[in-house]
Amino acid sequence: MGGIIKPRGGVYIISAASGAGEHERRGPIGTVFDVYDDTGTDRFGQKSWEEAECRMLSLTISAALGKAKLTGSDIGAFLGGDLINQCTVTARAAVGLGAPFAGLFGACSTAAESILLGSILIDGKSGTDGRCVAAASSHNCSAERQFRYPVEYGGQRPPTAQWTVTGAGAFVLSAQPAGCDDILVEAGMFGRAIDAGIKDATDMGSAMAPATVDTLERWFEATSTKPSDYSMILTGDLGAVGSEILINLMYSQGYKLENHSDCGLIIYDHQAEDKHSGGSGCGCSAAVLASHIFPLMRSGLLRDVLFVGTGALMSPLSVAQGEAIPGIAHLVHLKSCAERK
Amino acid sequence: MGGIIKPRGGVYIISAASGAGEHERRGPIGTVFDVYDDTGTDRFGQKSWEEAECRMLSLTISAALGKAKLTGSDIGAFLGGDLINQCTVTARAAVGLGAPFAGLFGACSTAAESILLGSILIDGKSGTDGRCVAAASSHNCSAERQFRYPVEYGGQRPPTAQWTVTGAGAFVLSAQPAGCDDILVEAGMFGRAIDAGIKDATDMGSAMAPATVDTLERWFEATSTKPSDYSMILTGDLGAVGSEILINLMYSQGYKLENHSDCGLIIYDHQAEDKHSGGSGCGCSAAVLASHIFPLMRSGLLRDVLFVGTGALMSPLSVAQGEAIPGIAHLVHLKSCAERK
Repeated sequence: MGGIIKPRGGVYIISAASGAGEHERRGPIGTVFDVYDDTGTDRFGQKSWEEAECRMLSLTISAALGKAKLTGSDIGAFLGGDLINQCTVTARAAVGLGAPFAGLFGACSTAAESILLGSILIDGKSGTDGRCVAAASSHNCSAERQFRYPVEYGGQRPPTAQWTVTGAGAFVLSAQPAGCDDILVEAGMFGRAIDAGIKDATDMGSAMAPATVDTLERWFEATSTKPSDYSMILTGDLGAVGSEILINLMYSQGYKLENHSDCGLIIYDHQAEDKHSGGSGCGCSAAVLASHIFPLMRSGLLRDVLFVGTGALMSPLSVAQGEAIPGIAHLVHLKSCAERK
Repeated sequence: MGGIIKPRGGVYIISAASGAGEHERRGPIGTVFDVYDDTGTDRFGQKSWEEAECRMLSLTISAALGKAKLTGSDIGAFLGGDLINQCTVTARAAVGLGAPFAGLFGACSTAAESILLGSILIDGKSGTDGRCVAAASSHNCSAERQFRYPVEYGGQRPPTAQWTVTGAGAFVLSAQPAGCDDILVEAGMFGRAIDAGIKDATDMGSAMAPATVDTLERWFEATSTKPSDYSMILTGDLGAVGSEILINLMYSQGYKLENHSDCGLIIYDHQAEDKHSGGSGCGCSAAVLASHIFPLMRSGLLRDVLFVGTGALMSPLSVAQGEAIPGIAHLVHLKSCAERK
């Protein structure tokens, strides 16, 4: 009711894995990532940045499947997307995985979108059809040259700019629980595309915050809950600028977000590391969720997490044509199964 | 089982509408489209081709909602996509519609992907949550300049090339039937991304045909059916080149596709109209299905249609980097409710 998407049976995230680049490995949670490039070049042995991103994503999916003791043929579907034009990175990874594939585009909200659609797809099904992989990735070097400038150019960045994360996250979803450290996909809600009039591609936090407010307000109203009913409200990725706007806008609507965290602020020490407003990119929330938040949930330190994947639905062309940047925010309510102990 | 996606309750396409450009209106089914630009310029009153495509898509969605006597606020979700980088056309249409939005990327298979995911999303739900809009669009002028050359350039096209359709299709899906002329979404299957080694962006039919074979073989095996059990096997859009490959490959696997049609061959008289191998683009199968196939189903002339949306998962960059073009084919089994009479 009221836009709430709820699997009828339980849908569980039975394993998750992350990939990351060198900048991310130097950050505050740098030790948690499963997949990285030993050479420190973020090339993952490939000759183009797009192939490097694809290799990182494919390795991350393999790592998640490995943790669940599964292979690609045990999976009924793969849902995912990335930032690269026509989602070619994910498509190439889908070729390697061999599972039926549904391509998504949600910009930086893709991890949440894929978990939500994957949960509905496998809900209640058995066998292979009851398992899917949801994944998302981004690479700083493939994204920056497409959306802004090649990194070699060394373009100046304003303080509102976010840093596209080199990272990936993959989640194995199953209609059957695997154990007491699963994460339950309790419910969720798709966001509405909200145009707040922001036209600056280096200020995506301002473009995404109003959409986040819209989704959270609709969620709290539909569920008759309030922010303090959850262990954490985790947005990804509003950065410092967008997070402040979110907290202020929510406060003006009567909601105190005292338990708010943002994946873009978790992944970097953004001021010390010259990352301006913080991290962004499909891989940011995917990697932070998989390898930082989930361990906290599995240990029972976090019980209920509202994960709100946020995206800026723009292209270089739409910005050049003077279009505003619509924001979107997809919400997934995740529960730790550890609390049942 | 075996990759079959089947709504538990019935999911019905209670209305559908199409938009088209001037070339499409001059074609063999030119009189069936709901939305077009009176001026014959395909600009739909806008100043850029991307805005023109968005306007055509938005008008088409409005037309489909209007036929079902609904508005945007009666809809629980909007699923759709287009060919333009970062799917900005569909995102902009989602802002106008105001419904929760899940962006998809399936290249020319997007219509099938959106119908399939939309059916699962609303399956069995009541009220607004039991209704969604699935849609897809493409515009020759926005796509050609992005993927190949601006149309003003007049670039030569090889005989294998397809012509990106200016068109859109929108489908109102409901968990509750509206009448005896509904189309039932019986079941479906997501395609696998198949790399057949084709690297020529002007020969997408060859890239997509092997993926179509893969999906059809898996479908016939999983359902224990054969091509002649259906009124029509409708691919969209393999064109002349891809259709011939499909028929030959299927024949070599023991399947006779005597009831095959292709949306890319239906929309144009491809030889007389200088459209080379036929039409393509997300809007091609969407518009042909909505306004040509559905009336035939509603009248009972076609009872069972296997609609196989086909896509070439490439970008100009992936082609320039020498990557092969993976194909994909999503299948939707559609049934006419008229046969119940």
